[in-house]
Amino acid sequence: MKYSPGLHILAEFSSSNIGLLSKSSHCKQLFNSLITSHQLEKVGEVYHDFENGGFTAVVCLTESHISIHTWPEYELATFDVFLSNYKRDNSKKVEEIYSEVLNFFEGIERQKSAINR
Amino acid sequence: MKYSPGLHILAEFSSSNIGLLSKSSHCKQLFNSLITSHQLEKVGEVYHDFENGGFTAVVCLTESHISIHTWPEYELATFDVFLSNYKRDNSKKVEEIYSEVLNFFEGIERQKSAINR
Repeated sequence: MKYSPGLHILAEFSSSNIGLLSKSSHCKQLFNSLITSHQLEKVGEVYHDFENGGFTAVVCLTESHISIHTWPEYELATFDVFLSNYKRDNSKKVEEIYSEVLNFFEGIERQKSAINR
Repeated sequence: MKYSPGLHILAEFSSSNIGLLSKSSHCKQLFNSLITSHQLEKVGEVYHDFENGGFTAVVCLTESHISIHTWPEYELATFDVFLSNYKRDNSKKVEEIYSEVLNFFEGIERQKSAINR
């Protein structure tokens, strides 16, 4: 049977808000808020702050995952959101979540790919 | 300053080895082995097995992340490997890891995207 998992957005954005790129705490609040507001289900998470600044975070969802890696020294972040359509079409949520993340980080989009997996 | 994080491969593959797609234990052994052999540094991980079969796994690395989501009922998996080039060019390792994962799962590639982030 053919099954198409869902939409995956990958983006790089720059931000001059170095504070938000340096530590994961505010991002964690954002991700938790997005998971609640978009009615997603978290099954695990990793938030790792690097000693010299910047962090990496991945949230595993029933619907797949959200990830971010930040490079405050380059004023840059790479962001992914991939939601499968197992129970319903989540494509719109993928676009909305990316938009909300970009807005939160005061980001300027440098590159974006949208892949139907 | 312009900084290009690195290569990200996203792939969907099918496999008739339902056992490997159903539970995360063998995949965890594989990922740990790949992290060692490619001299990567793990900073966190999530392995979540779903009650009805299939699993989702993400390994956070200093170099970014590896993830897999499986749908044994569709004989399908979605796999990501993204390694940043912070300390060295890891593009070759990205290709090698994808190839080793595909081989391990006895996978048939259905779709592959390679994005220079």
